[in-house]
Amino acid sequence: MPDPIAVGGRASLEYTFSIDDVTDFARISGDDNPIHLDSAVAVEAGFGRQVVHGMLVASLISRLLGTRLPGPGTILLAQQLTYRRAVLVGDTVRATVEVLSVRADKPVIVLRTWVETDEVALEGEATVIVRPLTGVRNGQA
Amino acid sequence: MPDPIAVGGRASLEYTFSIDDVTDFARISGDDNPIHLDSAVAVEAGFGRQVVHGMLVASLISRLLGTRLPGPGTILLAQQLTYRRAVLVGDTVRATVEVLSVRADKPVIVLRTWVETDEVALEGEATVIVRPLTGVRNGQA
Repeated sequence: MPDPIAVGGRASLEYTFSIDDVTDFARISGDDNPIHLDSAVAVEAGFGRQVVHGMLVASLISRLLGTRLPGPGTILLAQQLTYRRAVLVGDTVRATVEVLSVRADKPVIVLRTWVETDEVALEGEATVIVRPLTGVRNGQA
Repeated sequence: MPDPIAVGGRASLEYTFSIDDVTDFARISGDDNPIHLDSAVAVEAGFGRQVVHGMLVASLISRLLGTRLPGPGTILLAQQLTYRRAVLVGDTVRATVEVLSVRADKPVIVLRTWVETDEVALEGEATVIVRPLTGVRNGQA
């Protein structure tokens, strides 16, 4: 682990989703559901603007886990995500991860994870294992 | 809903992840954890090749839900994902969603979701709501 991981430790980031982000994610994922891409369809479905793919919103959690806390070497083991409100193109969100527990016997960490605008849009938990990236050959699954 | 949704109904797709997919996802998500991008680091961490981001693997589920079953108009409400094995760059996977339940009073659907190579790599459940995309103004959350 790059740093000691302490219960209660947090990392956050802010991000504003653009239509380019949504278009790129639609291309990569193959999810071209028009509710994400077509503003008229999004309005018809009861939203003000195009809806950011839920998994693109959730990728902010992946980013925090993989780059900040725990950081490089992190591998997801399990994730629970509850989507409370849609995030729309142009919305600025804050994503946060907070350490809930660290196993004593191996680097398995459970974190609370959430993404919010004025209100919580996405909340859940992630369980990760951190593979040491230097000095250790680790065949452990 | 574009089609009647029946318990037991399934949709699947096959996909082979390229290093370009992983590089693009790293750029969009900001998750540039070297375990995904640097083959030497991936080998050092106990994998044979770069590890596909878990959320990129999970995006195949998003694709099936948003384009096939239930299809356009689908919005994620909740998701549970358990990552059983790493998917590596170059691996061909099959993703499948299967309807577990459909609520009688509103278009809320629970699906079992999994992604497999020879063995299951990712499994879980998704709860979605389907917003009608034509003819109905639906303000329901």
